[in-house]
Amino acid sequence: MSPILKILPDGIDLAATEGEGLDDALAKAGIPLSLYCGGRGLCGKCFVEIVRGTLPEAGEDERALAARRRLAPHFRLACRVRIAGDLAVRIPASSLLPRMPVLSQGVERSFALDPAVRKIRLAIPSPALTEPQALFDLVRARFPGEGLTASPDALRSLVRAWAEGGGPAGEITVVLHGGRELLAVEPGDTADRAFGLALDLGTTTVAAELVDLVAGRVMATATALNAQVKFGADVMSRITAAFGDPARAEELRRVLLDSLNALIGSLCESSGVAGREIYEAVVAGNTAMNHLFLGLPVDTLAVAPYFAVFSSIAPVQASESGLKISSAGKVIVAPNLKSFVGGDISAGLAAIDAVHRPGNFLFIDLGTNGELVLKNGSKFTATSTAAGPAFEGMAISCGMLAVPGAVFKAADGKGTAVAVETVGGEPPQGVCGTGLIDLVALALRRGLVSPQGQIRDPSKAIPVADGIVLTQKDIREVQLAAAAVKTGIRMLLEAEGLSIPDLDEVYVAGAFGSYLDLGNAMALGLLPLVAREKIRFIGNSSLAGARAMLLSMAERERCEALAGRIGHESLARGSAFQSLFVDALEFREWS
Amino acid sequence: MSPILKILPDGIDLAATEGEGLDDALAKAGIPLSLYCGGRGLCGKCFVEIVRGTLPEAGEDERALAARRRLAPHFRLACRVRIAGDLAVRIPASSLLPRMPVLSQGVERSFALDPAVRKIRLAIPSPALTEPQALFDLVRARFPGEGLTASPDALRSLVRAWAEGGGPAGEITVVLHGGRELLAVEPGDTADRAFGLALDLGTTTVAAELVDLVAGRVMATATALNAQVKFGADVMSRITAAFGDPARAEELRRVLLDSLNALIGSLCESSGVAGREIYEAVVAGNTAMNHLFLGLPVDTLAVAPYFAVFSSIAPVQASESGLKISSAGKVIVAPNLKSFVGGDISAGLAAIDAVHRPGNFLFIDLGTNGELVLKNGSKFTATSTAAGPAFEGMAISCGMLAVPGAVFKAADGKGTAVAVETVGGEPPQGVCGTGLIDLVALALRRGLVSPQGQIRDPSKAIPVADGIVLTQKDIREVQLAAAAVKTGIRMLLEAEGLSIPDLDEVYVAGAFGSYLDLGNAMALGLLPLVAREKIRFIGNSSLAGARAMLLSMAERERCEALAGRIGHESLARGSAFQSLFVDALEFREWS
Repeated sequence: MSPILKILPDGIDLAATEGEGLDDALAKAGIPLSLYCGGRGLCGKCFVEIVRGTLPEAGEDERALAARRRLAPHFRLACRVRIAGDLAVRIPASSLLPRMPVLSQGVERSFALDPAVRKIRLAIPSPALTEPQALFDLVRARFPGEGLTASPDALRSLVRAWAEGGGPAGEITVVLHGGRELLAVEPGDTADRAFGLALDLGTTTVAAELVDLVAGRVMATATALNAQVKFGADVMSRITAAFGDPARAEELRRVLLDSLNALIGSLCESSGVAGREIYEAVVAGNTAMNHLFLGLPVDTLAVAPYFAVFSSIAPVQASESGLKISSAGKVIVAPNLKSFVGGDISAGLAAIDAVHRPGNFLFIDLGTNGELVLKNGSKFTATSTAAGPAFEGMAISCGMLAVPGAVFKAADGKGTAVAVETVGGEPPQGVCGTGLIDLVALALRRGLVSPQGQIRDPSKAIPVADGIVLTQKDIREVQLAAAAVKTGIRMLLEAEGLSIPDLDEVYVAGAFGSYLDLGNAMALGLLPLVAREKIRFIGNSSLAGARAMLLSMAERERCEALAGRIGHESLARGSAFQSLFVDALEFREWS
Repeated sequence: MSPILKILPDGIDLAATEGEGLDDALAKAGIPLSLYCGGRGLCGKCFVEIVRGTLPEAGEDERALAARRRLAPHFRLACRVRIAGDLAVRIPASSLLPRMPVLSQGVERSFALDPAVRKIRLAIPSPALTEPQALFDLVRARFPGEGLTASPDALRSLVRAWAEGGGPAGEITVVLHGGRELLAVEPGDTADRAFGLALDLGTTTVAAELVDLVAGRVMATATALNAQVKFGADVMSRITAAFGDPARAEELRRVLLDSLNALIGSLCESSGVAGREIYEAVVAGNTAMNHLFLGLPVDTLAVAPYFAVFSSIAPVQASESGLKISSAGKVIVAPNLKSFVGGDISAGLAAIDAVHRPGNFLFIDLGTNGELVLKNGSKFTATSTAAGPAFEGMAISCGMLAVPGAVFKAADGKGTAVAVETVGGEPPQGVCGTGLIDLVALALRRGLVSPQGQIRDPSKAIPVADGIVLTQKDIREVQLAAAAVKTGIRMLLEAEGLSIPDLDEVYVAGAFGSYLDLGNAMALGLLPLVAREKIRFIGNSSLAGARAMLLSMAERERCEALAGRIGHESLARGSAFQSLFVDALEFREWS
């Protein structure tokens, strides 16, 4: 008769197999334990309380781990217990594999914490005189079957840590990547301090999150202007700057790295983390940013047929990336999907788990350029538009990022006045993307601007607040940007034989977040007229996707797999684009 | 009915399967074709003559490859042909997978040419405007199923070569490692120029071979003194020099690299090869040399329990190795077996295919130290002795390497004279290892030296030639070295319960080559008294093994596998060693 395994607090009874590992039996029952060290009895994260049943005494290592956590002797490591008879166990919540939310808005989704970087404490005794094994082989023996590899640098850090950690008597902490590669070794027990970075490389702004890889928690977030803006506001101006000029391309790379390293520095300082404690960064950027970041020429992105150098790339050595994190670390670049549909979009799709999400949907990223992905059944098609950076406040006379003082909301005020809200409630300094859309829609409603985008009284600019106005050129920028996005959506739908009512959902990514006034966006024709409940604002999904890839190997693999199967719809198809674009220039609702 | 495949010139008839690839059908029949590009129709090495039978017309790529080699249209690429009916084919010798000999003496052995580095010419068209794939994806598509990876550096070289090679119209040559990693890309067709290095890092001498990886041919060989000798003649003095002194260890590394890079420079110059055309080096050195070469501390080798930092290590980036070969290349380090039994021995065992060689045998490497491996049935046991560098001419007053002017042979001359032979027939300058053994054995026979190693007339040194004598200290050095080797052999045999008659073969590796006079070596007790036909001189098997690992991935894997299963017999077992050693000090035959 099979042994019965009773699981508390749920009270479920399971028929177990004699000799089976308790961790395996629980996994079969759908109870995922935290097996951080891969079930090797090294990390001490899968302790369960044995409520009934007898077990052979725990080994020395297991007793030491229990002592460190001050657990009573009837707490046992599930990965060490073989089932030999009836058992009743209670699973502490802390021993369950944590699930991490991905997006703070728009979509509820989570994944199991499964980072590529893991730190595990070990005590490595001195090799025996009669059979003196190599130091690294003693480490390898703790991870049987993995074929652990190490570079000379990693071996040097092993020797150093082993000596500093007190040699045979002391302990060391190994830093593993993907369970296969020894990145580094630290003296003593530092297993609780494992950190990673999620980086969003936007054309206008760069954003970074410092993430605790053990707890799966974001410790700090920071955003800054991409210092490359001095080479031009939109992505084409950056590409043009670097075209055929390796020295300039290198300058663009350095400027971008300066922005990123400044972010990293401030995140580390506010969190009390040293840069060398960060062993992995996941970078999600548009194609041009990904290329510039890696020091790859962007020349092939500058002229037709506009192609990338790479889509996917293997993990890059941190020491070669220029990022100020551990030189032993790795940098993961979210794959570019197509020429101008980059890693920011693949990461964004990862954030919503696009592959498994049912129905037809449109994914719109209103960053510096408008990138669009259409899911039709199980088929994905992507395209990019030349929307420019108007919605990020660039190329607008009074434009600014959504930082304190930026008008982010505008509505009718008293009489002809405009009621504005600013970020942080500060006196208005300028206008950011959502404010811009509100203001243009308001002007349109008030008849100050014609549907053709003409300010009715050419002598007058559109007043916003004290000393802040929208000029005719500003209105034209909004008009061109909205038309580019609209044309892109229409061509994608047309290519797939779909129309707006066929869409089950519309995901709107970008810094806009939920501050975008849907009615106004639709009035300008930026978004099609769909039922509001179909629209999901998902915020900076590029950063969220990068974080998901940082915290979960499975998410990372899924993102790579998606990159391999996405199609591309080129907007550069001459007359069809031209006529749709001209038609789209008019500010009006559409569906 | 199955189609019949007739193979000429042998005239064998095979029953083939319809739809089967001709390359597969031939492989099944034990006819290994040269499928350098992995059967992808890219390299043009598997052309066979279709003598009878009809085939669909060749594709454009295949016709282009045939045209390059000026082959008639009935020559077809076996990897492109699917068998649809009866066929008669003639296999040109040039289309067969070449087999490479390993050792020039002692053992006849060969392996199939299967290098890790392969260069393949490709023509990459411009991406299409409607579906602009990334440049690297176009390369990857030529190697389906491999999941080819590339570093940013490799991608940079891809873009550069593609542009320089004339873009879409031209051709490029990709350099692959292990079929999985793109190392670099060169413009134009350079597929015939793929080179590798085999390096033997000896304590006294370093040796290098420049190898043509396409033809499997050694192009040039060079040997030089390891410039580290200024830190001491034997390996312990090097370890002592570096012990606890990272700056000194780094100096030792640089000095070693200088020696190696000088060798590389001279090999390249004499062969008309540029260092950047060398994409792989296989390094076989003793444990200390391997550590110093990789910049790893040797401190754990300096004191009991004497252990290494690593046994096996993953391929090292050439750019980090300090070797002046392509910075995109890889350096493979032959695995250390045990503390002082290093990569020179694992490579030596690979050279004789020790795992598959039947019977019991002893492997003796008489380099700077005496390393010993005993195979007992299927079990391997290794040990190292502290023989010192006497047999390499070090620590001997008139000692020198086996270079022109070195006495390498000595016998009775007229009366009391000694007849000597020197390397190159030059006037005697000093004595090398084999000469030393001959001279001491001769002095022993003539009664000038007692079996206890005492010069009978203490006032007289042993005369060799004009101005060259052996001193009492020189005799002691030989006595100690021979006793160390003898003790090692006896302890290994004892531990395994074997005696000398149980040995089927004795392999003697080292620079000695076949110049060692067996009778003299046995008279001194350096080698046990076994039948001469059991003894095989295999020369520098470390270098030969490194070359085998360079030219064959299978040889490399076999060497790694052996390293994982070898046992160790420590000689540091106190009184047993002492008493055997004291006994071994007497010059006499033993069995």
